[in-house]
Amino acid sequence: MSRSGYNADLLISGRYLYLQDQDKTIVKDGAVAILQDTIIETGIGSELAAKYPGAERLATEHGLIMPGLINTHTHAAMACFRGLADDLSLMQWLHEYIFPVESKLTGDIVYQATLLSLAEMIKSGTTSFCDMYLFAKDVARAAQESGMRAWIGEVLHDFPSPNYGEVAAGYQYVEELFAMFSGHPLINITVAPHAVYTCSPELLKNLKNIADKHDALYSIHLAENEEEMKGSQERHGASPVMHLENLGLLDGRVVADHCVMLTDEEIALLARRGVKVAHCPESNMKLASGIAPVPRMLAAGLSVGLGTDGSASNNNVDMFGEMNSAAKLHKVNLLDPTTMPAETVLEMATTQGARVLAAESEIGSLEPGKKADIIVLDMNQPHLTPLFHIPSHMVYAARGRDVVHSVINGSIVMRNRQLTTLDEKAILANMMILAEQIKKNG
Amino acid sequence: MSRSGYNADLLISGRYLYLQDQDKTIVKDGAVAILQDTIIETGIGSELAAKYPGAERLATEHGLIMPGLINTHTHAAMACFRGLADDLSLMQWLHEYIFPVESKLTGDIVYQATLLSLAEMIKSGTTSFCDMYLFAKDVARAAQESGMRAWIGEVLHDFPSPNYGEVAAGYQYVEELFAMFSGHPLINITVAPHAVYTCSPELLKNLKNIADKHDALYSIHLAENEEEMKGSQERHGASPVMHLENLGLLDGRVVADHCVMLTDEEIALLARRGVKVAHCPESNMKLASGIAPVPRMLAAGLSVGLGTDGSASNNNVDMFGEMNSAAKLHKVNLLDPTTMPAETVLEMATTQGARVLAAESEIGSLEPGKKADIIVLDMNQPHLTPLFHIPSHMVYAARGRDVVHSVINGSIVMRNRQLTTLDEKAILANMMILAEQIKKNG
Repeated sequence: MSRSGYNADLLISGRYLYLQDQDKTIVKDGAVAILQDTIIETGIGSELAAKYPGAERLATEHGLIMPGLINTHTHAAMACFRGLADDLSLMQWLHEYIFPVESKLTGDIVYQATLLSLAEMIKSGTTSFCDMYLFAKDVARAAQESGMRAWIGEVLHDFPSPNYGEVAAGYQYVEELFAMFSGHPLINITVAPHAVYTCSPELLKNLKNIADKHDALYSIHLAENEEEMKGSQERHGASPVMHLENLGLLDGRVVADHCVMLTDEEIALLARRGVKVAHCPESNMKLASGIAPVPRMLAAGLSVGLGTDGSASNNNVDMFGEMNSAAKLHKVNLLDPTTMPAETVLEMATTQGARVLAAESEIGSLEPGKKADIIVLDMNQPHLTPLFHIPSHMVYAARGRDVVHSVINGSIVMRNRQLTTLDEKAILANMMILAEQIKKNG
Repeated sequence: MSRSGYNADLLISGRYLYLQDQDKTIVKDGAVAILQDTIIETGIGSELAAKYPGAERLATEHGLIMPGLINTHTHAAMACFRGLADDLSLMQWLHEYIFPVESKLTGDIVYQATLLSLAEMIKSGTTSFCDMYLFAKDVARAAQESGMRAWIGEVLHDFPSPNYGEVAAGYQYVEELFAMFSGHPLINITVAPHAVYTCSPELLKNLKNIADKHDALYSIHLAENEEEMKGSQERHGASPVMHLENLGLLDGRVVADHCVMLTDEEIALLARRGVKVAHCPESNMKLASGIAPVPRMLAAGLSVGLGTDGSASNNNVDMFGEMNSAAKLHKVNLLDPTTMPAETVLEMATTQGARVLAAESEIGSLEPGKKADIIVLDMNQPHLTPLFHIPSHMVYAARGRDVVHSVINGSIVMRNRQLTTLDEKAILANMMILAEQIKKNG
């Protein structure tokens, strides 16, 4: 309790405060007051400092305070395969490099590699991520240690998993995940069928039942590339989207990853069903999957977030870089420089991303009552000078490395570029050793 | 003189040395020995340390030593318009924002803004840049202070310039530039007609004569977008490339910037003439100009370098980001993940860039006899871990901010992220003041 009667635990202040609220409010010399895990007030720095004298201060002279970024689709542990194989066809990449090394994964490697990705995420401004991978309990263990807000799913497919083995055991594993993290303030469990080309209709339906039972998100790779389209037509006589529609699985809890190949009719259908989309432009570029029709999706009213996909096909998880690519790619694709303006792209990485994860009442903007997921950038740098328009700099000039502090759920997870929850030095050293093992497995 | 009889001024050492030579040699725990402005030896760090005991040391435990990057097309001073206007059609952007503010430019603003861009370039790993802008003497003055290797041209066009006024005075200005910097170790003067749509055939020819007289590069925006193509057909009955060919201007000293719109016949012609190309993927994306057929150019044997274009259409001059975009853009455009592999893109930013600037015997790789233009990256970071393949990390994971030291022409211009030749704090403070003035002019 402060002597004045008002109480805040933490007061974050800086030169600019960008709320990312409905009005795109910018407060010069602004501050955010936080009590426990929640934003209780935003406003003029000096006024809030006077009102909350007992709060711990996190002040940055040239700081820009903004909402933390939301990565709606990644495979964090794939950080351990970063740069292992590039510039290959998708099938050669998967079959000759990724699947062989993944078949030898262990829970410990996934844990270590997820820690690595979490360190990178925090150091580049991400405060929430939606993950789909093997050994999800180990992913969640790493996420829990880091203090990151997480949506985590164990990937399921028809063939046996290096983690749980046969599919039947996979259902059990997913149920255990829900039991372990029920009520956790930061870890949300999702249900994650891999894709229509790796999951039988029965598996897809059973998993939707599990998701519905737990009111959980259903995250699935969907319509990622031409090969998936062809295979779906051959096996199911329908596109991937229509296959899910025919199975009755499309609804507002579905997070469809990639959605590169969509017809206008499918976009309208996804919008009617309230399906959410995770757009991963850099991975789609690097794997040559194609360019998702995001401007048309947005025009149809779909909620589209941004994702980095895994570090093996990107090869980083820098959401600032992802925003930059998203803004530019669609302009050149449509030969229209006015499409995907900076404000729209910034929304995709914040408020829209929150909507994709059904968390729009909790995160995505800096407003009283929302969780305190906040990053601060150092704007006093050549590449961010001069400053005419904040969203432009966030999308076209800034990089993850410009983030100096990060707060998640009211806790400082990075201060002056130093991680407070993770031992960065140990994580890097461990990964160097693991990399030798991975090379041998490849 | 060292007591051993061998002499070096500077010894740069680190965990990895990437020479970017013909064999793509990597030396573990390597070093580069420098005498005055020149690399005299590369090899094992401990051996070179023993051989050159008198040399100043620049050692980086987790450092990757590589050639500095070469930006073959930029307008450095446009850094002062960074983020002033985005997401607009090219003509609206130019006529409503850029031309009005450019008409009020002064030599002092250009000088200050070029300093800003130079600070950003050095801090993101660029050691050579090719510039085309107004008030080139002021650009050169800034470059000279920074210690950067520079190719600098005063832009000429038919209409009066805020710098020199009428075209006749422009010729005079260019001759003065050549006189001022004749024999300068770092400043090379180029001749820079703006484009075929802004320069009469007479101006284009007169400038080529001046360039030839001084054996200088002839840098010109060429075939940048659809509008330029249409205008050229209407006015000259020929495409921009064929217009220059008809005027007899295409040869090995021409640096053609952008080249988005080329037919296969034009690519073959440019290759026969030995014309060099500056590819600017991010600017072409952001302005929605189109996608240059770079893989076809490379297959035809053209030398293609990378450029960032100005910071008003990018909005940064980070060549690492440009490499990333170049590698990914062509993959998705051709739906071929094997095109533009990391090694090829890294060449474009180094050895190929050197060839574009007719400086391949001087820069682009770390080999004895070449000028010492060298950068060191800190590889002990989450987003660069693990390390399986150096070119992959340089193109797909690294960012300019990873550069910790920069040496140009044998002189340390940045040490531990601190600029040694420029007063970064003063540059940023001056630019904040100038930005207010620019906003009023807009």
